[in-house]
Amino acid sequence: MHTDDVTSERAPLIVEKQFFTFAEGEDKMMLESGALLGPVTIAYETYGTLSPKKDNAILVAHAFSGDSHVAGYYSTDTEHDKPGWWDSVVGPGKGIDTDKYFVICSNILGSCMGSTGPASINPETGKPYGLTFPMVTIGDMVTAQKLLIDHLGIKELLCVIGGSVGGMQVLEWCIRFPEMVRSAVPLATTMRHSAMAIAFNEVARQAILADPNWQRGDYYSTTPPHMGLAVARMVGHITYLSDEAMRRKFGRRLQDKSDFSYEIDVDFEVENYLRYQGSKFVQRFDANSLLYITKAADYYDLTSKSPRNSAEMDFSLSKARFLVISYSSDWLYPTYQSKELVQALKRAGRDVSFCEIEADAGHDAFLIPDKRLQDILTGFLDGISRNH
Amino acid sequence: MHTDDVTSERAPLIVEKQFFTFAEGEDKMMLESGALLGPVTIAYETYGTLSPKKDNAILVAHAFSGDSHVAGYYSTDTEHDKPGWWDSVVGPGKGIDTDKYFVICSNILGSCMGSTGPASINPETGKPYGLTFPMVTIGDMVTAQKLLIDHLGIKELLCVIGGSVGGMQVLEWCIRFPEMVRSAVPLATTMRHSAMAIAFNEVARQAILADPNWQRGDYYSTTPPHMGLAVARMVGHITYLSDEAMRRKFGRRLQDKSDFSYEIDVDFEVENYLRYQGSKFVQRFDANSLLYITKAADYYDLTSKSPRNSAEMDFSLSKARFLVISYSSDWLYPTYQSKELVQALKRAGRDVSFCEIEADAGHDAFLIPDKRLQDILTGFLDGISRNH
Repeated sequence: MHTDDVTSERAPLIVEKQFFTFAEGEDKMMLESGALLGPVTIAYETYGTLSPKKDNAILVAHAFSGDSHVAGYYSTDTEHDKPGWWDSVVGPGKGIDTDKYFVICSNILGSCMGSTGPASINPETGKPYGLTFPMVTIGDMVTAQKLLIDHLGIKELLCVIGGSVGGMQVLEWCIRFPEMVRSAVPLATTMRHSAMAIAFNEVARQAILADPNWQRGDYYSTTPPHMGLAVARMVGHITYLSDEAMRRKFGRRLQDKSDFSYEIDVDFEVENYLRYQGSKFVQRFDANSLLYITKAADYYDLTSKSPRNSAEMDFSLSKARFLVISYSSDWLYPTYQSKELVQALKRAGRDVSFCEIEADAGHDAFLIPDKRLQDILTGFLDGISRNH
Repeated sequence: MHTDDVTSERAPLIVEKQFFTFAEGEDKMMLESGALLGPVTIAYETYGTLSPKKDNAILVAHAFSGDSHVAGYYSTDTEHDKPGWWDSVVGPGKGIDTDKYFVICSNILGSCMGSTGPASINPETGKPYGLTFPMVTIGDMVTAQKLLIDHLGIKELLCVIGGSVGGMQVLEWCIRFPEMVRSAVPLATTMRHSAMAIAFNEVARQAILADPNWQRGDYYSTTPPHMGLAVARMVGHITYLSDEAMRRKFGRRLQDKSDFSYEIDVDFEVENYLRYQGSKFVQRFDANSLLYITKAADYYDLTSKSPRNSAEMDFSLSKARFLVISYSSDWLYPTYQSKELVQALKRAGRDVSFCEIEADAGHDAFLIPDKRLQDILTGFLDGISRNH
């Protein structure tokens, strides 16, 4: 696999998490389910400089467990601080060039990284929402982002880009606010969550529900369901990798030993890796947010959702140019699902390019530094800017 | 997919579970790990009639959660009694024809369906073994089967056949007791458990270990870890199906409702199916057995296991004719792994046929009634019998 390290040698971006609150008082946000939610806070970060015409803004939509910290560092201590989750793509001179573009990334509604979610305080009770938090959809996440973009005074986004659940948000942007999106790059995503994808999410949810510490979501003043959440993360992690990636990464290598333990214990590196991923995740993520966001992904279906009739109808109002990207070893949202999206866009008369990137890293490939993705994005965004 | 129902119209087989106990007293069984185990009981069933020359015996090795009840019924009440797990394949006039062959199926060591396993009484304590049960390997399971075959007075098996973990047993038979196996049919299996297969098993184990009722395996007089075991089964179930099979079986159909619930609840049929599979499984299977058997599968590796050097060396003493069968949509043990097995057998100079069956049912395809499998087995076994 060709994956040059494209880390820039320029000074790192130092960013700050910001917050935007709306739907305060009587003016609550109406969700797709019909429920009302308010106040709503959206955590976000911006990179680069907004042009005087405000025509160089790019919105990056993050995936399921991501956050607003797409690139750069929170402090100048870059040796100990961790860079943003897509630092290989977003930055000065990178695929999404912050010397040219004003990049915005906001934490999704329902998450736990600064935006309002089930761990937030319910103003009616003074206690965390837990399961009284209303179900939010991908559409609701996008509506909240739109209010943030309005707040920033931006009338049109040069591009909306995102992978996985972020890709669903990209599509939803083109449907809900077609006049605001000049171009769209959905990566490693799908128009419709498959039965298999739903099944994996359901197992992850059941792992949390099976943890007695979950207590029907009311655990914010007690011990959180860390065991269940860790198992849920392990399930997810397998779906993000591929058979090939695991073989390359772990094979059947044993963990710190020369022979089998012949006990119910860690023998293989892959076991140790999964346990580590599970235990690391519980330190940063809220179990209820996992329940809500996986459910939002499962609900996602552009092809049959009432009151819409078809994806073609959905995309008919969009004026965006599309670049659809899939990865050859992604079995969570396989290439055939990206091709279905391309077909729907073409039937709707849209301008669409499609690129399948050969990579053996599975679904996670879009997060891994890769010169090819950089070059594709640079070329596509340059074209969009020029035609402006 | 072509899957004729091949249920015979002849009177059903009525069978009885039998038990064979060995390694009693001082004469314990030495396991691959070096541990001693005894007494050992093996539950088994037989079908058809052993020929006077005892040369028509076929051993069927079951998969991970299977049992000795491969075919027929335990009572004449065939409307309410459930047939054996491979009743479509084993019976009068079927692919493994009980009019011609004497079929034996035994429950594997470490299981909980009649053979000795972690739920059995440890004679030293008078209490169930739990985690004091020694780790057993695929090789140990086969050694126990061999003692049963000896007990039945059979010197040579016409065929050893099995899918999945049963297929690993087939391979192990050819290596441990090469002079006793005339032909071998490993289906939907692998020479070596992949990192991805280990990863799924590890998540299943972690789901059990995360259940506080598990109590380090000592739950036989308390509430068993049913929640964890159910989640473990759900993980397994996804790996047995395929993307296509799930789409065909469930798609995104909603469960008993016309719209989303917008709650952390069952919305989709596939969710309901998984929960049902999980809850059904806990009624019949022991959580500790799952831990032990998945670990045995994970340990399985013909290609690098000490003191062996290679699969070729392993198979060099075998005189069996091999028929290797894989299924096109099996992503747990994909076709490329069966092809690796075929290559290893060829390099060892073995007579091997290979067949990939086109089927969209995933790993479970080998358990689903399929006329093609019947015909292949009939032809292969007729050939072996004729050459006898």
